[in-house]
Amino acid sequence: MDKLTDALNFHITTGPLPASRKVYQPGKLHPDIRVPHREIATHPSANEPPLAVYDTSGPYTDPEAEIDINRGLPRWRTASILARGDVEAYDGRLLRPEDDGGSGAVPAFPVTHRPLRAKAGRAVTQLEYARRGIITPEMEYVAIRENEGRAALQEKRARDGEDFGASIPDFVTPEFVRDEIARGRAIIPCNLNHPELEPMIIGRNFLVKVNANIGNSAVTSSVAEEVDKMVWAIRWGADTVMDLSTGRNIHNIRDWIIRNSPVPIGTVPIYQALEKVGGRAQDLSWEVYRDTLIEQCEQGVDYFTVHAGVRLAYIPLTANRVTGIVSRGGSIMAKWCLAHHRESFLYEHFEEICDILRAYDVSFSLGDGLRPGSTADANDAAQFAELETLGELTRIAWDKGVQVMIEGPGHVPMHKIKANMDKQLKACGEAPFYTLGPLTTDIAPGYDHITSGIGAAMIGWYGCAMLCYVTPKEHLGLPDRNDVKTGVITYKIAAHAADLAKGHPNAARRDDALSRARFEFRWEDQFNLGLDPETARDFHDKTLPKEAHKLAHFCSMCGPKFCSMKISQEVRDAARQQNDVAESGMAEMAERFRRQGGEIYHPSR
Amino acid sequence: MDKLTDALNFHITTGPLPASRKVYQPGKLHPDIRVPHREIATHPSANEPPLAVYDTSGPYTDPEAEIDINRGLPRWRTASILARGDVEAYDGRLLRPEDDGGSGAVPAFPVTHRPLRAKAGRAVTQLEYARRGIITPEMEYVAIRENEGRAALQEKRARDGEDFGASIPDFVTPEFVRDEIARGRAIIPCNLNHPELEPMIIGRNFLVKVNANIGNSAVTSSVAEEVDKMVWAIRWGADTVMDLSTGRNIHNIRDWIIRNSPVPIGTVPIYQALEKVGGRAQDLSWEVYRDTLIEQCEQGVDYFTVHAGVRLAYIPLTANRVTGIVSRGGSIMAKWCLAHHRESFLYEHFEEICDILRAYDVSFSLGDGLRPGSTADANDAAQFAELETLGELTRIAWDKGVQVMIEGPGHVPMHKIKANMDKQLKACGEAPFYTLGPLTTDIAPGYDHITSGIGAAMIGWYGCAMLCYVTPKEHLGLPDRNDVKTGVITYKIAAHAADLAKGHPNAARRDDALSRARFEFRWEDQFNLGLDPETARDFHDKTLPKEAHKLAHFCSMCGPKFCSMKISQEVRDAARQQNDVAESGMAEMAERFRRQGGEIYHPSR
Repeated sequence: MDKLTDALNFHITTGPLPASRKVYQPGKLHPDIRVPHREIATHPSANEPPLAVYDTSGPYTDPEAEIDINRGLPRWRTASILARGDVEAYDGRLLRPEDDGGSGAVPAFPVTHRPLRAKAGRAVTQLEYARRGIITPEMEYVAIRENEGRAALQEKRARDGEDFGASIPDFVTPEFVRDEIARGRAIIPCNLNHPELEPMIIGRNFLVKVNANIGNSAVTSSVAEEVDKMVWAIRWGADTVMDLSTGRNIHNIRDWIIRNSPVPIGTVPIYQALEKVGGRAQDLSWEVYRDTLIEQCEQGVDYFTVHAGVRLAYIPLTANRVTGIVSRGGSIMAKWCLAHHRESFLYEHFEEICDILRAYDVSFSLGDGLRPGSTADANDAAQFAELETLGELTRIAWDKGVQVMIEGPGHVPMHKIKANMDKQLKACGEAPFYTLGPLTTDIAPGYDHITSGIGAAMIGWYGCAMLCYVTPKEHLGLPDRNDVKTGVITYKIAAHAADLAKGHPNAARRDDALSRARFEFRWEDQFNLGLDPETARDFHDKTLPKEAHKLAHFCSMCGPKFCSMKISQEVRDAARQQNDVAESGMAEMAERFRRQGGEIYHPSR
Repeated sequence: MDKLTDALNFHITTGPLPASRKVYQPGKLHPDIRVPHREIATHPSANEPPLAVYDTSGPYTDPEAEIDINRGLPRWRTASILARGDVEAYDGRLLRPEDDGGSGAVPAFPVTHRPLRAKAGRAVTQLEYARRGIITPEMEYVAIRENEGRAALQEKRARDGEDFGASIPDFVTPEFVRDEIARGRAIIPCNLNHPELEPMIIGRNFLVKVNANIGNSAVTSSVAEEVDKMVWAIRWGADTVMDLSTGRNIHNIRDWIIRNSPVPIGTVPIYQALEKVGGRAQDLSWEVYRDTLIEQCEQGVDYFTVHAGVRLAYIPLTANRVTGIVSRGGSIMAKWCLAHHRESFLYEHFEEICDILRAYDVSFSLGDGLRPGSTADANDAAQFAELETLGELTRIAWDKGVQVMIEGPGHVPMHKIKANMDKQLKACGEAPFYTLGPLTTDIAPGYDHITSGIGAAMIGWYGCAMLCYVTPKEHLGLPDRNDVKTGVITYKIAAHAADLAKGHPNAARRDDALSRARFEFRWEDQFNLGLDPETARDFHDKTLPKEAHKLAHFCSMCGPKFCSMKISQEVRDAARQQNDVAESGMAEMAERFRRQGGEIYHPSR
């Protein structure tokens, strides 16, 4: 154990980002909640208040927080969950050898907790609270969080954007959150058994979110690496993390991740179910799957990918595809359906699945098992048939009071992206869409974060609520730490570009602050206000390493003579002076500028 | 000299890409032309002919070619240019000390050539030939090149795309090229004095092209590095290269680059003109600029960025911008205009500029000196005022018989990109658009290849003809070799995603070939068919290094048990069998599949 612990602690990156300070804002309805933001300080010459930004990194960036991977994060939500009086602790399912593939290589998490579930007859999902008009601590939390430190009343400015029918408010109130959840247009994935969670909301009328996939495979990875990747992913901005582990040790690895995660954790339960039957899809059964759901509900998984839309009748629709079925879960279910020539047990037992998720407030992420695996297969009959079924299942889940989002493709050329978004909104009654990319071309293995970042930005703009990242290793290997960071930053770019294009009332603030820093040669501010201060600084150092150059009024692209920003500042001053005088005075102004203006040449300091 | 030569040769990468062979196709009208393509061989099991792709890399990837940087590339166009009988060789302008900033650090290119220009009264631009109905060797060359090895008549298949009013033909004929050039909708940048050139075409009805910027600055870089970057950039797919050098040695560095470049070279002549007057914008004059134009025309520059649209009256429109004027050329001209309080000498002497360019067939790239340097400034009055002027100048250049394209922004959020394209088409009579990105957000210094790759893909889709790359070092430093490659690959992705979305009749071919390779676990083919085989292979090796894994029917993401592609192939076979039998036979088929199908588990080989 000790050796493992050392290894875990060794890898995890903690501490604040440059020039950043974590601040907490309390609730009004729920004074005990502490909603984190990150404040980025700028140089005194900027004469600007610190820029508050959304902060997904959890306690790991708070110097005050004590981090102990062996104990997990503080279980701060437990008190308020218990105070509701509608849940009960119970002994929970007994662990079985097959939960971990009989491996024993990864030790159990050192601390155990009795699971919670809804008392009989009680409705404990955020959706059900919202319908009853209740504003939960989670709802107030996300309302504050979405405003990114803004005070309630700002000067109203005209929206600059095209939102394609979204209804983004100027300021997010707890009531707005409640209403969006009640309508099914947004979800807060928050399992009762994940009380370490810092709640977040997924919906098209909120900031666009990013998911990062981690997880070991049968071939590689260890628990220490996976916990490290989770902490690393949220440091750079991942809003949720999916644990897609498929090998042995799947139960214990998940425990270590959830107990240390401040962000919602998603899984694909069929992966573990398949492990339990020795990897033979034919041997899967409702019983094994049901058992796995309960196991994971008790652990605290916040959302489940369930491929219940892969119906028997749709499978032949994939026969002439270039790349068949590429979703793992989809292909497993397709194989089961064909082997038994029966309708999917996920589809047939969907109401029972709802009943299980409902008792823990686990959200659905209805999987797109028939998503296209190549641009050639985009928007085909198989894909859209499944989407219609996901709409049908969404309505069933809503009837059961379960929160739902919908997964989407995949590989889609640019001209077919909007049709995906529009069809999803229609078929699924505006339930949040959550897409993988989409990749806009298939020809760049090694660069699929970029092929897909393009599609992700576009579908985010069109209305997609959460973007599942793709790393440079997609199609080639398991992402390492660097790939995780590259994937997350790429997708933060896509999500933010989408917010900006939608006209989100707060999105341009960060762009403008950074652009001002750029124009005024506040190099440190330019680095610190960006998504990745370390890389920006490192790149600047490569050409102009001296510290003095951080104060230089030029950069290495132009050098001191040609700096357009410098010239432009002079031009601006002169042009403003010109505007101040009458037309007749302009020649004189020009002469004055000439006398004052000196050289373009601005000596390096 | 010897030492320099060694250094130059040392750095340059030559030899074919993996599994690739260079093939040359002769012309029919002009049998002497040899149009290169690259053929990528696939594994025999694919039973597919080699995939022919567009090849920008020049002789450097031809094992038969002898490369000698000190002699330059073969001047193969000279014979046909002279055969036209409308040009003359002459002694050319004498070099002056100020051409190279008096530096002497970079030796002159070892071989000199007498420059060519049009005989008095003769019209030698591609535009003028096209108007007279002549199909030049250059026109036939690009026609063959654009077809990427396709034979003339293919089976007609329905277009899958949205081209926003483009007129992309199924097959490019020399006549189509001629007509597009005659209409001003496309250009072939091909200075008489760059006979080493492999001609290429820029226009919205052709494949979307990519430009890479190189060039030293006052702060850093050497000639060997710059020549290396040029060769490296075209190896990965750059269609043109701009030499944006701004320091000393500017004349000689350019000579080394042009003499060794098979792609068109663009420059911004005002940079060198400013060097000649000691960096004082006020001291610029028409005479110095004119002299610089002639100097560069004689050297063989193929297109010039000319910021003639920065008019005095537009400068005050930038006064309230967040980032003022960020174009170097734009800010230099703005400073000149304000200092003298006079209209821009570029604008006033535009017809004379046309006369000079016309004599050498140098193309205009009308610069957007007032482009936005931040998303906040996108699509503002200054930017669009200049665009209208560029339209006016386009018509003057056309009247003079000079080829023209138009430069565009810059920093533009997604919802404002299409307006740029639409306005440009209208204002500039469909002259080709050539944009820098645009960057869709300002918040990611270090990742601006990605912020801009998103915008580039979109504007390419909307109709932009050439995309100027942005590297990860944008705003931070000068790109090194790795940055150049990353920038080029990112922009090849954007350009290809655009071709695909426009429904280019040949674009999906490479995607589909790669997707088939992926589905059939032809790992080597998947690497080789991609834009960057080396990186793809390297990433695969990182998780599954063994050579045997290149034959594995799984990858490291899922491991041998879960491979969705493998399962999917089984499913496809079964589904096809099902389709072959009547409904009543399906249960039987399922049973048969069950007997045959075996495991999902597929042992590693």
